[in-house]
Amino acid sequence: MSEIAADPSHPRYQSLLMRHRLEVAEEKGMLAGSALIAHGRGEAFDYLLGEQTIPSALAATQQALALLCSATHPVISVNGNVVALAGKEILHLAQKLNCPVEINIFYRTPERMKALLQHLNEIKQQEAIDVEILGAKPNARIPGLEGPRANCTKEGILDSDVILVPLEDGDRCEALVSMGKTVLVIDLNPLSRTAQMASVTMVDELSRVIVNMNAHLDSGQQVVENKKYSNNETIQRALQHIAAYLQS
Amino acid sequence: MSEIAADPSHPRYQSLLMRHRLEVAEEKGMLAGSALIAHGRGEAFDYLLGEQTIPSALAATQQALALLCSATHPVISVNGNVVALAGKEILHLAQKLNCPVEINIFYRTPERMKALLQHLNEIKQQEAIDVEILGAKPNARIPGLEGPRANCTKEGILDSDVILVPLEDGDRCEALVSMGKTVLVIDLNPLSRTAQMASVTMVDELSRVIVNMNAHLDSGQQVVENKKYSNNETIQRALQHIAAYLQS
Repeated sequence: MSEIAADPSHPRYQSLLMRHRLEVAEEKGMLAGSALIAHGRGEAFDYLLGEQTIPSALAATQQALALLCSATHPVISVNGNVVALAGKEILHLAQKLNCPVEINIFYRTPERMKALLQHLNEIKQQEAIDVEILGAKPNARIPGLEGPRANCTKEGILDSDVILVPLEDGDRCEALVSMGKTVLVIDLNPLSRTAQMASVTMVDELSRVIVNMNAHLDSGQQVVENKKYSNNETIQRALQHIAAYLQS
Repeated sequence: MSEIAADPSHPRYQSLLMRHRLEVAEEKGMLAGSALIAHGRGEAFDYLLGEQTIPSALAATQQALALLCSATHPVISVNGNVVALAGKEILHLAQKLNCPVEINIFYRTPERMKALLQHLNEIKQQEAIDVEILGAKPNARIPGLEGPRANCTKEGILDSDVILVPLEDGDRCEALVSMGKTVLVIDLNPLSRTAQMASVTMVDELSRVIVNMNAHLDSGQQVVENKKYSNNETIQRALQHIAAYLQS
């Protein structure tokens, strides 16, 4: 990371910090080959949002948090980019929610699983966090998916009622929804299949969402589900925001 | 590249082909660390264009081609991503235009320069193309830039009147415009500093643009400069296209 990026007042500090975290993760073997291209796509959509949490995304975040808080078996499913970009923040969130984190990656290799587990366990130690990390020994499968990408654990994803899956692939989002789960996703592209199919779509940058969730829980403010919540409206508002930005 | 991607009728064939070319280039040491993230950003904007050449981009491409054809000293400046994604097509274009290609990279290392030169020379041999490749031994500097990124050659970039610089950085685009050159850029982000500052901005995917230019020259059709061309209008039309796509 350049010297400029070490200064939090630099306008591109957050963006450069995220790139730095990906570089570290790349060196540790945590990322899939498509990780950096996927991150670049996200950067472009975040640029069109003005690199900020828009009001409709904050409302979706509060809705997602309310659903996690009232869940019977909540779980947070993480992949390589999620662990790289917001591993620490996710573990703090899981601790506050008292739920497990499951490593669930699309391109599964023993080396990547090991690197991701090790990274999360290092953070747990450094931050004195007590959260269960699942996924090392899959003992169940997500119906409707083929190959290693269907692997999951019974006590985590399979038995969950509410699942937070940031940066999820479209096929897996669809499979989880088909299982009857409440699926909460974070996706900067409001037109993606994942964004369109999820129960709640936070059109926002991953680390901003998790920081907002942690801040909300720390504030002691009530987290109340909005019974009239419309995810279609959330997506429409994101699209309107981007279109207005482009034409301003 | 997956088997699906080997089938040109696959809807994502072009996109997967470009990723494959980047993978090959990465293995050859041709790319900068930021290359894949930059490509991902481009993918997102191309997605918003519908992965097609929109009419205003085709008009800008014809304008750029007319300016290249009527130039006294045209040059094509290429970086790692350009060589990776469209090296062959660029060399064919340079041959048709009878102009040199100059390798000019932002993050300059001897290893990357060597890998890029080797890749272009391999294509020249395979395709029996006779084009001068400049950049190996810089003997001039672009005024207004600091460090190795200012390096260029006198017989190429420095003395050119019209320069095609696909995927250019904002600072360098600005420096070239300040030198009084006609600067033709290809940039999928119509809001980027590069897009805003260039003489002609083709808001389109690199390989589509070069294929279109080659096809136009091969067709024998006249290439005539539009004296009333407005680059601001080109950019506005791209923004309108994306905004309409988002709201459709």
